[in-house]
Amino acid sequence: RKDLFFILGPCVLESRDMALQTAESLAGMAASLDVNIVFKSSFDKANRSSLDGFRGPGMEKGLEWLQEIKKRTGLPVITDIHAPQQADEAAGVADVIQIPALLCRQTDLILAAAATGKIVNIKKGQFMAPWDMAGVVDKAASRNPGIWLTERGTTFGYNNLVVDFKSIAIMSGLGFPVILDATHSVQLPGGLKTASGGQREFVPVLARAGVAAGAHGIFMEVHPRPEMALCDGPNSWPIDETFSLLQNLLKIRDALHA
Amino acid sequence: RKDLFFILGPCVLESRDMALQTAESLAGMAASLDVNIVFKSSFDKANRSSLDGFRGPGMEKGLEWLQEIKKRTGLPVITDIHAPQQADEAAGVADVIQIPALLCRQTDLILAAAATGKIVNIKKGQFMAPWDMAGVVDKAASRNPGIWLTERGTTFGYNNLVVDFKSIAIMSGLGFPVILDATHSVQLPGGLKTASGGQREFVPVLARAGVAAGAHGIFMEVHPRPEMALCDGPNSWPIDETFSLLQNLLKIRDALHA
Amino acid sequence: RKDLFFILGPCVLESRDMALQTAESLAGMAASLDVNIVFKSSFDKANRSSLDGFRGPGMEKGLEWLQEIKKRTGLPVITDIHAPQQADEAAGVADVIQIPALLCRQTDLILAAAATGKIVNIKKGQFMAPWDMAGVVDKAASRNPGIWLTERGTTFGYNNLVVDFKSIAIMSGLGFPVILDATHSVQLPGGLKTASGGQREFVPVLARAGVAAGAHGIFMEVHPRPEMALCDGPNSWPIDETFSLLQNLLKIRDALHA
Amino acid sequence: RKDLFFILGPCVLESRDMALQTAESLAGMAASLDVNIVFKSSFDKANRSSLDGFRGPGMEKGLEWLQEIKKRTGLPVITDIHAPQQADEAAGVADVIQIPALLCRQTDLILAAAATGKIVNIKKGQFMAPWDMAGVVDKAASRNPGIWLTERGTTFGYNNLVVDFKSIAIMSGLGFPVILDATHSVQLPGGLKTASGGQREFVPVLARAGVAAGAHGIFMEVHPRPEMALCDGPNSWPIDETFSLLQNLLKIRDALHA
Repeated sequence: RKDLFFILGPCVLESRDMALQTAESLAGMAASLDVNIVFKSSFDKANRSSLDGFRGPGMEKGLEWLQEIKKRTGLPVITDIHAPQQADEAAGVADVIQIPALLCRQTDLILAAAATGKIVNIKKGQFMAPWDMAGVVDKAASRNPGIWLTERGTTFGYNNLVVDFKSIAIMSGLGFPVILDATHSVQLPGGLKTASGGQREFVPVLARAGVAAGAHGIFMEVHPRPEMALCDGPNSWPIDETFSLLQNLLKIRDALHA
Repeated sequence: RKDLFFILGPCVLESRDMALQTAESLAGMAASLDVNIVFKSSFDKANRSSLDGFRGPGMEKGLEWLQEIKKRTGLPVITDIHAPQQADEAAGVADVIQIPALLCRQTDLILAAAATGKIVNIKKGQFMAPWDMAGVVDKAASRNPGIWLTERGTTFGYNNLVVDFKSIAIMSGLGFPVILDATHSVQLPGGLKTASGGQREFVPVLARAGVAAGAHGIFMEVHPRPEMALCDGPNSWPIDETFSLLQNLLKIRDALHA
Repeated sequence: RKDLFFILGPCVLESRDMALQTAESLAGMAASLDVNIVFKSSFDKANRSSLDGFRGPGMEKGLEWLQEIKKRTGLPVITDIHAPQQADEAAGVADVIQIPALLCRQTDLILAAAATGKIVNIKKGQFMAPWDMAGVVDKAASRNPGIWLTERGTTFGYNNLVVDFKSIAIMSGLGFPVILDATHSVQLPGGLKTASGGQREFVPVLARAGVAAGAHGIFMEVHPRPEMALCDGPNSWPIDETFSLLQNLLKIRDALHA
Repeated sequence: RKDLFFILGPCVLESRDMALQTAESLAGMAASLDVNIVFKSSFDKANRSSLDGFRGPGMEKGLEWLQEIKKRTGLPVITDIHAPQQADEAAGVADVIQIPALLCRQTDLILAAAATGKIVNIKKGQFMAPWDMAGVVDKAASRNPGIWLTERGTTFGYNNLVVDFKSIAIMSGLGFPVILDATHSVQLPGGLKTASGGQREFVPVLARAGVAAGAHGIFMEVHPRPEMALCDGPNSWPIDETFSLLQNLLKIRDALHA
């Protein structure tokens, strides 16, 4: 059952308490379901739609909170960086370093992340074909074989994304674990005036399809109260409906291996 | 187990013998797996890429063959029509009448098919949003409540299609069974000079994802020797790998209902 | 100046008087600007979004009106057909027979239209690559060398179209005149609940770009009162702003040839 | 005639001599045609498809060369930055600072560029709707009203881009000059195994359509020998065909204003 893992957590580190409580919930699920969960949260949202969007606590405080979360829950943590010079400091705490989709072509960022020796989770840009991740993987692999690839939807007209599930098979062919990001994939980019909209109700549909399509991991932003989230609320999944969703996903995974 | 059904068969009625043998194979699977299989084949391919493409035996002979297949295998049959005046004759044999995707907006065709009283399986046009099938459904439902809706991919740039699995949930919301066509969805329209290409290797990925996403039925063109098929070979699934694929799909369906 | 021609008229023949008055306006512009204008209108809208949409006067009455328009204005006329058996009757009146975009892959319709000996204007399907019109052209050219090709936008996500202006150059390479349909290209298919929306304000932008890109003809649905139109109002261009738009387009054409 | 300006130059500063000679050619055209030309070249290609792609001379040497080019040709220069900390140094030389399309959502980069007081040319991301540039513009305008916006195509399926010419009108509505990038718009992203392909033959089509659609400026990468270019060769326009193309574009501009 350990062969399907999950990356879960709030979009942004809204506060120390909120992040810690969410992580403790998730740690409970990991123990109860006997699965691997990586806690995900960002210390800085560097590409908000609007200048007024909440960006987070910043790197210093954010990494401090993540360190505490690791220690108290035992969950490994993943966080994203936006500049090469953040890589080493982030790697001091994070078990996995994430490259945002819009930055997946920035060579220096990939190299710096990979050079830390930590696993690097690279999100496929919304503007890229799955087979073109080969060039991105080559950059990272020149420093470090620990690579994960995440599908989070492709530009589909304006203000919409579509997940091409063939992408999971195609990227798996590159030889690294492939993750489906089921929450960003239901974003409606720019769909709200000053932020991105989302269609939370489709998260389970995409997550289930992702497992059935053969994804090694499922990524979902979860939140205790999505409607109050400071970032990505419309596409975040409620923490109190997360346990049952994970159960369903594990059943599909079991069926595939039966 | 009867709640996941399959529409299976060769793209076109290549010959009486070939169609009958394929149907007998499928009837064996239906019995062995205790599932509903509808035999699908076309009597006329009315929209080939090239004037030289094989079109089929025509309506008269085609319906005769389908009648014999029904009788000898016990499978219900589905076939597609391209003009309103074909509806009644087709309905004399077919249990389900199919509306091709490119014709799903032709009002008179929908009305004529629905007026036969047979179930009408309407393929969503490659140019349509799933919610816009509401208008199409209204046309058919004005004559007959027996409607199925089939997702077969949406135009995604040139010479490519993408399946938006959210579409399965959206169209299910219209109140009728939704089918995923896992073979036409891997077509590369016009990808070959005088015919459409296809990526057969992704058929199981999409079929599994379709079941997991909640499709009521899975449609697949199957062929004893896809590389020799007179139509849609590149995206047809081999008949001798069909039984194991159906087994896998049923396991996923069972997992969803467990 | 005769090398840039126009196809203009109301979407549908709303009434004899309305069509005739519009045609007389257009005939005046043709004379005054010394350009070729083909009068366009449909006798039947066979693929409305909703069953309740106005379909038109039908073939018999519609062709009678078009005949009268030809006679009284001297303008050649173009109208679209939806079934092979309509071709001969339509060709008795129409100077050009049009194949709707959604039907451009229907072999029998193309062959029947071409067999009349009239010029056939084939609209490129919203689901097709421009180079794949080669197969369509081959079908028509097997009967008749008089072919026009019309670009009217390609599916671009849901409820939107985009014109790829490279298409004008690519289709010109097939050896036949290429027309940009500047009004259907600003449609938002299905954008209204029971009809397609449109963005009339962008018609001049696309029409100017079309001429500059090298289109041989510009197609625009024009209407005396677009907001009252029974079909395609949101993307129709007002007749009283048509003369000045044609003047601007001709200036661009002259600049290209200067 | 000064109301249509051009941004022209080689993709990357391949060598001091090559850049200087290209700029001198362009300065000759600017004088002869009495138009404004801004010389464009990059000192670092930070997001090549492959790790082995040529990246350029780096910031220090690159800015030195651009300074010399400014001095010797009198042309203003534009160059792109990829990190906030590059803004001030680049602004010491560049008249216009460019934000790469993939980075147009990175808030700190926009703010740093705008804070220099120089004009900032922001390329619209391939993943963005034109109206969503409002949020990007707000970020820049919070520091500096000198903003240009550049359309360079939108993701259109895999390995292809499409220019929506409506975007020129929509972005013009934001109140800043809008530029059409006619060379990156014909890129086939990732179309070659380890680099992006391109379709140079369509550059004039898009450039002419851009002027006709109302663009204030046209951006084109030009090169003395595109087939030998170290970057973006397949979509670069030959310098020796540039003068005649500019003449044609100016004629269209004149026709619009006649």
